[in-house]
Amino acid sequence: MNIYWSDTAKRLEPYVPGEQPQDRKYIKLNTNENPYPPSPKVLEAIKNAADDRLRLYPDPDCNSLKEYIAQYFGLEKGQVFVGNGSDEILAFAFLTFFNPGNSILFPDITYSFYPVYCGLYGINYKTVPLDENFSIPVESFFQKNGGIIIANPNAPTGKYLDVSLIRQILERNTKSVVLIDEAYIDFGGESSVKLVNEYPNLLVVQTLSKSRSLAGLRVGFALGDRGLIEGLDRVKNSFNSYTLDRLAIVSAIEAIKDETYFRKTREKVIRTRERVSRELTGIGFEVVDSLANFIFIRHPKVYAYDIFQKLREQGILVRHFNKPGIDNFLRVSIGTDSEMDIFLRVIKNIVRE
Amino acid sequence: MNIYWSDTAKRLEPYVPGEQPQDRKYIKLNTNENPYPPSPKVLEAIKNAADDRLRLYPDPDCNSLKEYIAQYFGLEKGQVFVGNGSDEILAFAFLTFFNPGNSILFPDITYSFYPVYCGLYGINYKTVPLDENFSIPVESFFQKNGGIIIANPNAPTGKYLDVSLIRQILERNTKSVVLIDEAYIDFGGESSVKLVNEYPNLLVVQTLSKSRSLAGLRVGFALGDRGLIEGLDRVKNSFNSYTLDRLAIVSAIEAIKDETYFRKTREKVIRTRERVSRELTGIGFEVVDSLANFIFIRHPKVYAYDIFQKLREQGILVRHFNKPGIDNFLRVSIGTDSEMDIFLRVIKNIVRE
Repeated sequence: MNIYWSDTAKRLEPYVPGEQPQDRKYIKLNTNENPYPPSPKVLEAIKNAADDRLRLYPDPDCNSLKEYIAQYFGLEKGQVFVGNGSDEILAFAFLTFFNPGNSILFPDITYSFYPVYCGLYGINYKTVPLDENFSIPVESFFQKNGGIIIANPNAPTGKYLDVSLIRQILERNTKSVVLIDEAYIDFGGESSVKLVNEYPNLLVVQTLSKSRSLAGLRVGFALGDRGLIEGLDRVKNSFNSYTLDRLAIVSAIEAIKDETYFRKTREKVIRTRERVSRELTGIGFEVVDSLANFIFIRHPKVYAYDIFQKLREQGILVRHFNKPGIDNFLRVSIGTDSEMDIFLRVIKNIVRE
Repeated sequence: MNIYWSDTAKRLEPYVPGEQPQDRKYIKLNTNENPYPPSPKVLEAIKNAADDRLRLYPDPDCNSLKEYIAQYFGLEKGQVFVGNGSDEILAFAFLTFFNPGNSILFPDITYSFYPVYCGLYGINYKTVPLDENFSIPVESFFQKNGGIIIANPNAPTGKYLDVSLIRQILERNTKSVVLIDEAYIDFGGESSVKLVNEYPNLLVVQTLSKSRSLAGLRVGFALGDRGLIEGLDRVKNSFNSYTLDRLAIVSAIEAIKDETYFRKTREKVIRTRERVSRELTGIGFEVVDSLANFIFIRHPKVYAYDIFQKLREQGILVRHFNKPGIDNFLRVSIGTDSEMDIFLRVIKNIVRE
């Protein structure tokens, strides 16, 4: 604590991202990165853009990128917002659509950045309990609220909520914004983007960090009604005119364009997830149904934290959340097949001991 | 206006950056970009970093970059904060150090993003009038305040405030943060960084956009007491864990390391500024003393807006601010010598007509 901090800075409880250790080489299954490299076309585009033009500001509106994204989803450019990772977009969205006095709703087990944003802006929130299978009971969202945010698939469970159920929420909730955070949607779920033209209060947020293997470049986007997008642009333009640098913009365009590569790597991740889930089930693990690029697992006899520690000692990083209700689970990102083979061999030994 | 906007989004008046036209090729003297390319070492480093690692998140704390910056300025790593351009750092700093109820102070003519940040967070402010030569009367800052922000050199005037005068403000102002925005300091002024170890409430913000020719890559940094930096980190980590992407981090490191190139291009800009200032004075312009990479000029007989329009018609972009007190001035960024030769030839004709 420092005497010069504002009241806001004093009350914050910042988000803690998964560790990015520098001490040794790990099999990194802890931050949901894609195990496959970005499209070769992305890397080529970066090399071609690394020239004199970097002395010039980027396009503050990222028009070309917005056009590619709009075209990809069959929307208009005015329905697209882009930002420095989906985290930045969420940070803008909380400020653009939620008011302090009016509690927003989100599941009690979800992306732990949501309460952090609320703390940052002094927004009240109420959490909705998941059921015993980590499913979201949609009826719990049929109540007065200042906004709704749902990660779909949810994190850290990987559980997917069908678009028909999201439609139910939208039908009964027309006065506040419903934000669907689809960071992991490309690994098997159906996007709510198809509802964007029907509901003027639906905002769908996606990222290139996971399914396009670009966590290192920080690009996310939001899709929604023009009115919502205009609001996001106003807030962004009152914060930082140029949130995406020139290399991030060209990379994102190439990543969106290379659909073949995207489909190929996505399918590989899905296949590996299904195989690893089966093998873990086979050795006694409970594996939550996942449509994400990670799985959420529990062993009936060995404590999650013990498994976490032993994996770490043997050079494998996974994520453990020290939170009520999920503290006996581990979230395991899906790596390459050979990484997962090592993971399976090591974890089998751990639970057999 | 949209019914789903928060009260904050409704009250905003966003910042408007200088235009980045796509319609034709201009001599671009309107957004204070460096006319010289980034260091060749920066471009090489980007090409070497454009590989598989982009699938991984960057270091959220940017430790290696912070270490280089600390070393460069003779500070500790804990005294360095980095961000997505100095605009993002200012946006974080306003939230970290200023409280809504307690008016902050800044000059009435200065970077027009400051009142925008105040609008974003509901922070009150009071402006301090510059004197008739656009100098900052430091005594005006000897009054109760919730924080002080001064651009040095100031924008859009280019006027520099001596560090001894900033020290005077710091001596009389120990209860709130004094933020010195040094976006243009490398073009001839002395940095207040040398006061950082003496005053725990001094925060100095700089950028690589101007003097390191990296506007396209969005990297800024702040230097100050550990307590201030920790506050900025808390706010940043409650907003977006990874604000700098991998390519921006490696570029920034190389730009800081290549001191020879930095000095060479900076000297060229300074020499060109001095020559252009003399020539403009010679044809009747009033030229405000500038230690920035731009000049602020007025003609006694021809309206600034008319000159602006005529320059534009002839393919030269400069910046005109439609604001009381400065609406008869133009801000002209310093280009290459050959660009400025064209500018001088064209403007001579305009004022001669």
